[in-house]
Amino acid sequence: MSPFSTGAHSLRVPSPHAARRGLFLSFEGGDGAGKSTQMALLREHLVKERSVSEDLVLTTREPGGTPMGAQLRELVLHGDHMSPRTEALLYTADRAHHIDTVVRPHLERGGLVLADRYVDSSVAYQGAGRELEPEQVAALNLWATGGIMPHRTILLDLAPEALEERRPAESLDRLERAGRDFHRAVRKEFLGLAAAEPERFVVIDASQPRESIHAQIVDALSEELSAFDPTFEQTVAARPPSEER
Amino acid sequence: MSPFSTGAHSLRVPSPHAARRGLFLSFEGGDGAGKSTQMALLREHLVKERSVSEDLVLTTREPGGTPMGAQLRELVLHGDHMSPRTEALLYTADRAHHIDTVVRPHLERGGLVLADRYVDSSVAYQGAGRELEPEQVAALNLWATGGIMPHRTILLDLAPEALEERRPAESLDRLERAGRDFHRAVRKEFLGLAAAEPERFVVIDASQPRESIHAQIVDALSEELSAFDPTFEQTVAARPPSEER
Repeated sequence: MSPFSTGAHSLRVPSPHAARRGLFLSFEGGDGAGKSTQMALLREHLVKERSVSEDLVLTTREPGGTPMGAQLRELVLHGDHMSPRTEALLYTADRAHHIDTVVRPHLERGGLVLADRYVDSSVAYQGAGRELEPEQVAALNLWATGGIMPHRTILLDLAPEALEERRPAESLDRLERAGRDFHRAVRKEFLGLAAAEPERFVVIDASQPRESIHAQIVDALSEELSAFDPTFEQTVAARPPSEER
Repeated sequence: MSPFSTGAHSLRVPSPHAARRGLFLSFEGGDGAGKSTQMALLREHLVKERSVSEDLVLTTREPGGTPMGAQLRELVLHGDHMSPRTEALLYTADRAHHIDTVVRPHLERGGLVLADRYVDSSVAYQGAGRELEPEQVAALNLWATGGIMPHRTILLDLAPEALEERRPAESLDRLERAGRDFHRAVRKEFLGLAAAEPERFVVIDASQPRESIHAQIVDALSEELSAFDPTFEQTVAARPPSEER
């Protein structure tokens, strides 16, 4: 039997689950919401106030967290015009590579990963653009990553209006309005994802002062951070898959 | 509901089907089997003996049939070491882009496409390497291409031994033996695919003289080539999806 001669085809997708070792935290939100600032503050907190050794904390980003990822990012941003499917496959290839070569090895060593964007960004941006269905994007990503999900996800929530408060909608040109509508749609998708998985997501109002946001993040993650072994000498307690919490 | 909060995920994959316009022919087989030679001979036959206008015959290859594809090919061949999943996603992204920007537009204009490798290569090589299951590779490719399959596929079948007749197995080193075993496995996969879809595949013994191979290809495709409108003025008769033949 040929895989092309039958009518029934589907990609077998692993169930979403959290890594059994280490701690995987993702930061999500629109551009300008302060993800990299908060990741840097959390890293500093971990190293200075919780004595986590520096090499245990890996800060990474997608796309572009690997040399190959950087090349793919260039290709997506500056290469040929491409279809939503092609773009989704390239981002997913980058993610598979990033998980295989950077994130999973670090977690298996018991490390802590702070990721600037992960699968929720793909679902939110594609969902907002209405090009590919969120369920399809999620399935493709779960296949690519082997189903590995963050233990917790920090959503820095910011209204697009907060970045352009002084400009009334009437003064925006067509492209600027379209851009704002898109960012509103992305925000709505992120909030929908967070509402559906309250155990995984921490939603924080990103219009607040950065020190206040940082304090709320540390507070929300207190259980995970206290359970994390900063010396790397013991195995971090196994965590249940996020779907089962 | 979040696409990550449920346990059931699958990628919805379109059924394999042939394009309704144009003629899509793929050439498969191991390296050195003579694919590009036979594609050139068929092109010459079409233009000189069947008066097909030159711009109606598109000869293309994968990976690398587009500028983006060429960059992806470089990345796969000379970039970071990558996992089978990452490699499959990159090849599939290239294929999606190639189909969207080159193959489908040409078929929709009623053109004839001669493709040096297509989805069967992905299935055969991954199947032979035992890294990803053929059904999974097929599903990923059907999703990426929207399910479009060649009307006919020419498999140029050549025993790996034919390329190295004068060297007995005992004189090969470990890597050479592994290479030959792999090429044997790829050949077996190709022959399995062809046996499962005898309506789509034409299997030709590639150890024969090239003019003889060419004559057999023209003979095997006589129905499709006669039905093909070389003047581009009429719509090529719709063909049933390959799965329904």
